[in-house]
Amino acid sequence: MNTEFSSPLLEAAVTELSRLPGIGRKTALRLALHLLRQDTAAADALGNSIINMRHGIRYCSVCHNISPSEVCPICASEGRDRRTVCVVENVRDVMLFENTGMYRGVYHVLGGVISPMDGIGPDELEIESLARRVREGGVDEVILALGATMEGETTNFYIYRRLEGLPVRVTQLARGVAVGNDIEYTDEITLGRSLRDRTLFSDTFTQEF
Amino acid sequence: MNTEFSSPLLEAAVTELSRLPGIGRKTALRLALHLLRQDTAAADALGNSIINMRHGIRYCSVCHNISPSEVCPICASEGRDRRTVCVVENVRDVMLFENTGMYRGVYHVLGGVISPMDGIGPDELEIESLARRVREGGVDEVILALGATMEGETTNFYIYRRLEGLPVRVTQLARGVAVGNDIEYTDEITLGRSLRDRTLFSDTFTQEF
Repeated sequence: MNTEFSSPLLEAAVTELSRLPGIGRKTALRLALHLLRQDTAAADALGNSIINMRHGIRYCSVCHNISPSEVCPICASEGRDRRTVCVVENVRDVMLFENTGMYRGVYHVLGGVISPMDGIGPDELEIESLARRVREGGVDEVILALGATMEGETTNFYIYRRLEGLPVRVTQLARGVAVGNDIEYTDEITLGRSLRDRTLFSDTFTQEF
Repeated sequence: MNTEFSSPLLEAAVTELSRLPGIGRKTALRLALHLLRQDTAAADALGNSIINMRHGIRYCSVCHNISPSEVCPICASEGRDRRTVCVVENVRDVMLFENTGMYRGVYHVLGGVISPMDGIGPDELEIESLARRVREGGVDEVILALGATMEGETTNFYIYRRLEGLPVRVTQLARGVAVGNDIEYTDEITLGRSLRDRTLFSDTFTQEF
């Protein structure tokens, strides 16, 4: 859309909004016009919340999750099992696992997955700090909880090799039929693994581990 | 998504972003995490552009389009035909018509369409100021350029009745087959009107009016 804007202020806002992922200039213009229809307090609240978030947020020095303090509430909690470390791609994944209400261990946020296409190698990720956590001791199990994608599997394998020889059990998320999904719509690789990794039916009733 | 956020700053930004139309909490979280990965300048630019736009933008006192000055560049231009006034729903529509490069008249931005469902009556719109422009003279034609929706047609009709008796020609956008569309996929009401309102084929070559 090669739109001639009647205001440089509007044009600037549309340009900035359209830098966000998944937001094109057409959507950005719709958002900007929406904001113009709201009172000034709404625009101030949005604008300031973005600025304050970016400037104010810190990262946990242990697990690299976002944190209001030097060490995040999860790592600092007495109620969490620090011997189990769940390795996730990003901050959102921590929230997803927390929302299951089933995990009592701690986390390690990699900050991405290995992706040569995007120029992301192991050194761009928090893999060395994970190895250090394990070497320092006190960790019994590392759960690799990355996506079942090519990049996720590659990263899982890289971390597995990196931790080889250290006294730690390395596990990964079960692959299987997604809850709510029909067998008919499950691909055969997933079906094969769900068969190989079959579990005791009585374990279905276990809500925590 | 009932997510427990690890930071009140992140939560605030997600809440504000999700107030935007078409952006749910899941998308808002994705946008916020994207901003956290950018440098602080990017968040400042976005936040400030929104605040500055909302505080700085003015509206043309003649046509109610957004404007950097008391009277907008279109209304102020010597090159525009002030006797032809195109009535549009909002600021975006002005841009759309300007982008056609085919219109030399001026505009009148209503600020919406009559929609009892949304509690928008004629008094919420710039209809009285349109009638005043016409009564003050110098306007030969009012082009009703609202959408071919129920609300648009209702508003068209209301304005038509409001201007009745005044020495002005009231026209509306042609209804017909959209350029690029197949006859097969055009509804029969549109087909009927496109037949009734058929035009001289030689007019196809006319680029301006």
